[in-house]
Amino acid sequence: MKMPQEVYIIEVGPRDGLQNIEQFLETEKKVQLIKLLAQSGLRRIEATSFVHPKAIPQFRDAKETISGVINLTGVELSALVPNLVGARNALESGIKELAFVFSISESHNKNNVNRTREESVQELENILSLKKDNLDMKVRVSLATVFGCPFEGEVKVEETLRYIEKVKDLGVDTITLADTVGYGNPKQVRQIIKSCLSQFPSITFGVHFHNTRGLGLANVLVCLEEGVMIFDSSIGGLGGCPFAPGATGNISTEDLAFMFEGMGIKTGVNIELLFEASRFLQNNLKDTPLSSHLFKAGPPKGWSYIYVTP
Amino acid sequence: MKMPQEVYIIEVGPRDGLQNIEQFLETEKKVQLIKLLAQSGLRRIEATSFVHPKAIPQFRDAKETISGVINLTGVELSALVPNLVGARNALESGIKELAFVFSISESHNKNNVNRTREESVQELENILSLKKDNLDMKVRVSLATVFGCPFEGEVKVEETLRYIEKVKDLGVDTITLADTVGYGNPKQVRQIIKSCLSQFPSITFGVHFHNTRGLGLANVLVCLEEGVMIFDSSIGGLGGCPFAPGATGNISTEDLAFMFEGMGIKTGVNIELLFEASRFLQNNLKDTPLSSHLFKAGPPKGWSYIYVTP
Repeated sequence: MKMPQEVYIIEVGPRDGLQNIEQFLETEKKVQLIKLLAQSGLRRIEATSFVHPKAIPQFRDAKETISGVINLTGVELSALVPNLVGARNALESGIKELAFVFSISESHNKNNVNRTREESVQELENILSLKKDNLDMKVRVSLATVFGCPFEGEVKVEETLRYIEKVKDLGVDTITLADTVGYGNPKQVRQIIKSCLSQFPSITFGVHFHNTRGLGLANVLVCLEEGVMIFDSSIGGLGGCPFAPGATGNISTEDLAFMFEGMGIKTGVNIELLFEASRFLQNNLKDTPLSSHLFKAGPPKGWSYIYVTP
Repeated sequence: MKMPQEVYIIEVGPRDGLQNIEQFLETEKKVQLIKLLAQSGLRRIEATSFVHPKAIPQFRDAKETISGVINLTGVELSALVPNLVGARNALESGIKELAFVFSISESHNKNNVNRTREESVQELENILSLKKDNLDMKVRVSLATVFGCPFEGEVKVEETLRYIEKVKDLGVDTITLADTVGYGNPKQVRQIIKSCLSQFPSITFGVHFHNTRGLGLANVLVCLEEGVMIFDSSIGGLGGCPFAPGATGNISTEDLAFMFEGMGIKTGVNIELLFEASRFLQNNLKDTPLSSHLFKAGPPKGWSYIYVTP
C-alpha cells in the first residue's frame, strides 16, 4: 500500500462554495469565514475569485476580502483567476498562488468560460508570462469534466492526458483533476488517476470531487489509495450545481477530514474548530442548507482525532 | 482483485426505512411500495417487521402487508423478527427468511431490544428451533454496532468474532455486519471485514451501512473490494437515527445501485424504475425528505446501466 500518511486539504468553500450563492456575503463575513477556516488548521484556502464583478457579483469584493486575510500566518491562500486581468489583480492583492480552470470537454469549456480549450491554454500561457516579474508566483491548473461532461457525457482519458501534456509543457507542475458535476465512480476514477500518475510522474496531482450523486468520498478513497495527497473540499459541502437544483455540491470538508482522521491520516484539521466555521456559515446563509453529514450528526461518541496544531 | 462482478442488494426500506417514521403509511401503500421495488429488479426485500404493535405502531399491519405481496415472483421477501412470537407470525404469513438483530455492544443491545447479548443468542436459538417444523425457513442474523456504539464508543473486533462464532455454532450461515449509527471508516471497515472473512470462510457475510457521517458508500467500496456481495440499502436513504435528528440514515438504494452499475457490477436493478419507487415515497411521505443524492440530481448525461431483466 502506497497510501499517504498525511494529506493536504485545499478548502475551496470561500470560492467554489460561495460562487453559486446569490445572497451576497458581506466582505467582513467572508474575512471571518476564512479566518475561522484557517484557525481550524486548514493550511491551504482558495479564498476568492478575481472574476469580473458582472460575471459573479458575489466576488465583487475580491480585493477587499484578500486585504482582510493576506496577513494570516500558517496558511497558503490562493485565488481563482479566469484570465490575465484577474491574474494581475490577484497578484496585486498579494496572492501568490493562482488557480486557473478549464474543461477537458470543449462544450463545457465554452459554456463555463466562453472559450475553446485552445484559447484557455493560450490564456494560461499569458498568465504564466507574469512569472518573470513575479518570481514567487505559483499556478495550479484545475481540469474540469475529467470524469464526465454534462453536455457530452463520457470524456475520453486520452483527451485529459493530451491537455495535461500541454499544461506541463507550459511549466505547470500542480494539476487538479476535477469532477465538477459528480459523474465519476470509483472504478473509473481509479483508472484515470492511475493513467495520469503513471504518465506524468513529475506532476503533483490533486483531485476535486463533488458529491452530487453521493460518490464523492468513495472517489476520494481510491485516489488516496493510489497515492494522491491533495484534496479539494468545501466547508459545509457548499457549492451546488446551477443545473441541478437541490443537488449536493462539493464534498464537505467536515466529512472529508473525518474520513481521513478516522483512518489515521493526518489532515492538520481540528474538526471541533471546523464546526465553528460551519456554524458561522449556517447562521449567515439562512437560505442555504449545509450538506455536511458530519456537521448534522456530530462526531461519534468517544471519537478522537489526530490533528496536529498548525 | 477478488472484486465481485455481481452483487445482491437487500432492500430494507420497507422495514428499516419506515421503522422510525411516525406517519403511518397505509397498508395498500406499503404493498405498492414493495411492488415498485420488486419491479425495479430488486431481488431481495426486507418487507416488514413482526414486532409488537405497541413497540413500533408503523408495523401493526405486518401480516396484511405480507399478504399483499407474498405472491410476488422473482423476489425473496424477508421480515425482521425480534423474538419467537414474531418469528411464528412471520412464518404463518408465508415469509421464509427471517432477519434477527442483536448488537455486539451490550449497552446498545439493552437499549435497542431490552435484552443482554446472551439473552439475544438464546432467543435466536429458540427461533432456530422452529426449523424442525419449517424445513425451508432461513435465518439471517444482523450484528449491530460492529463498527462502533453510540453508548460505548469503540467496539472491539474480538467481541464481533466471538458472537459470530456463537451464531455460527447455532447453524446460521448468513450474517450481516451493521454500522447502524454510521461510525465506520474505510480503514477500520476493511480490517474488520478481513478478520471476519478470513476467520469464518463458511459464512456468507453481508454489510449494512448508514450514511450518517457521509462515509456509507466509501465503506461499501472497501467491502466490495474484499469480496462482499450482499449489501443492505434503503430506497431514498430512508431510515434516520432517532438520536440524531436531521442526520442521514441508511445508504440509499439509488446511490448504491448507481455506484455498482457505474463500476460495471451487475445489480439487476433498473434505476429508472427504481425512481418510480422513490417518487412514490416522496409523494406519500410529505414530511420525510429523501436523502438519495442520485434521486435529487438525476443520472449523468448519456449514462447507461447494465441491469439484467429479473
